[in-house]
Amino acid sequence: MKLPSSVKLVEVSPRDGLQNETKIIPTPVKAELINRLTNAGLKVIEATSFVRAPKIPQLADAEKLLSLILTKPNVDYPVLVPNLQGLGRALHHGVKSIAVFTAVSNTFNLRNINCNIKDSLQRIEQVIVEAQKHHIKIRGYISCVLGCPYEGETDMTLTAEIAKRLLDLGCFEVSLGDTIGVGTPGKTQQLLEKVITNKIDIGKIAVHFHDTYGQALANIFASLQLGVSVIDASVAGIGGCPYAKGASGNVATEDVLYMLNGLDIKTGVDLNKLVETGNFISNYLGHQSNSKVAKAISARDC
Amino acid sequence: MKLPSSVKLVEVSPRDGLQNETKIIPTPVKAELINRLTNAGLKVIEATSFVRAPKIPQLADAEKLLSLILTKPNVDYPVLVPNLQGLGRALHHGVKSIAVFTAVSNTFNLRNINCNIKDSLQRIEQVIVEAQKHHIKIRGYISCVLGCPYEGETDMTLTAEIAKRLLDLGCFEVSLGDTIGVGTPGKTQQLLEKVITNKIDIGKIAVHFHDTYGQALANIFASLQLGVSVIDASVAGIGGCPYAKGASGNVATEDVLYMLNGLDIKTGVDLNKLVETGNFISNYLGHQSNSKVAKAISARDC
Repeated sequence: MKLPSSVKLVEVSPRDGLQNETKIIPTPVKAELINRLTNAGLKVIEATSFVRAPKIPQLADAEKLLSLILTKPNVDYPVLVPNLQGLGRALHHGVKSIAVFTAVSNTFNLRNINCNIKDSLQRIEQVIVEAQKHHIKIRGYISCVLGCPYEGETDMTLTAEIAKRLLDLGCFEVSLGDTIGVGTPGKTQQLLEKVITNKIDIGKIAVHFHDTYGQALANIFASLQLGVSVIDASVAGIGGCPYAKGASGNVATEDVLYMLNGLDIKTGVDLNKLVETGNFISNYLGHQSNSKVAKAISARDC
Repeated sequence: MKLPSSVKLVEVSPRDGLQNETKIIPTPVKAELINRLTNAGLKVIEATSFVRAPKIPQLADAEKLLSLILTKPNVDYPVLVPNLQGLGRALHHGVKSIAVFTAVSNTFNLRNINCNIKDSLQRIEQVIVEAQKHHIKIRGYISCVLGCPYEGETDMTLTAEIAKRLLDLGCFEVSLGDTIGVGTPGKTQQLLEKVITNKIDIGKIAVHFHDTYGQALANIFASLQLGVSVIDASVAGIGGCPYAKGASGNVATEDVLYMLNGLDIKTGVDLNKLVETGNFISNYLGHQSNSKVAKAISARDC
């Protein structure tokens, strides 16, 4: 079980994190968050989403936000795109990188995007065909890979099939999301083995863990052991869990980075700058950071 | 890497947890905590400590507490014993199981028990010789195995030697403590490999992780992979970190149990009763549970 020598961290706080925070953050503060994340050394920062504004008020300022970010040429700032309308807005704004999404649960998809898995893949295909004409990089997301808030356990074989389909359609990478954070390391490895058995290059698989039950880092360690080298995380663990109010959401990037540093796995990200960034946005959100590393370092420095 | 089929959870909240909580808990509440832990199915519950009362005011009620516990015959209630005086008090009270302790750091030992490693082992030998005359079970603790608050990195080879010495002296089990929670899974496995190389039966090794940097569950998963089957934990993660105020301390038993359940590893412990017990003592301590599982389950049940 050789661990990867380097890992790409995909920072999802500006989109997946903030969309679950109730306090609306002013656009310049979001831009400042993204700029600080860039300065901390992150190479992929999911910036916002082109869903319809009334659906997620927190992300209604997508266009304005993109115009405020100080982008760096070697950094990717993908935006979430649910359909052709969203892609149109993204293209109009010169976006170079998008993310499309589905879930391995018909009920979750019906509640979230008003269609079943099959129809969502058709919708994604339309988006990809159009996006490819404009040489856009496309990332795929699959939600509920270790459990669904409505259906309970989900089908790992189906997840592996959807992942393969997304890659075949043109996604360069597929992120497997444990949306409700119920997964444990054994289940994580079972899922990844299904993916590998389905002849998917593990280098094209990202893992996206929520820390609702405190399992995220153990699951990430289990994923690294099977060759995963792309990890989604949210600075300060911002976001919470929309399915259990008061519970934890996205795993904190600081905690992931601390583990990777300890494992001598390179990321190019500066831990101290990351902790400062997490504390910056936590202050704005008006709650404590959900990163244990941030708490420990802040306590130590007092 | 076959995981163990069952794990013994060693509950340390009444001693290691409470000794780091500033709010003094009434003795009957501590007894109620221990009784609830017994009812949840825990087979080892470290009850208290026979240190000098002024040193740790929270544990000054050791004798009174032991008289209030409703013990079960198949459950072990060890008490911490620092020296012959402490052992005398324990024997006087009919204690059947004790724990002795040292650290793999001269500075830590000097500050904590006023002697270096060598002298602490002599002191432990005196305690063990005397305890064995009374057929007492003796557990050993080594602190600072993945880092010391004063000396930084500690010597893994020396830890393996001290562990061997404690077993040779008569300890039935040695618990390796990451006292300041700085360890990561790779370092954890390096340490355990040193222990195994030193011809120590891994079945006699317990791991004791603090979650200060959020790494505890990942470290426990890494330990299970090397055959460790005894895990120390503290319900609701009570205890905090004496070296970083506001940071996390002991890993929460609920979170460990959730992972073990997910891995199909038997413990005999009931998760719901454990969560209720953690919420019970957190309410008395006047702060939120540090268990993410407890928070998620409590949020889900609202």
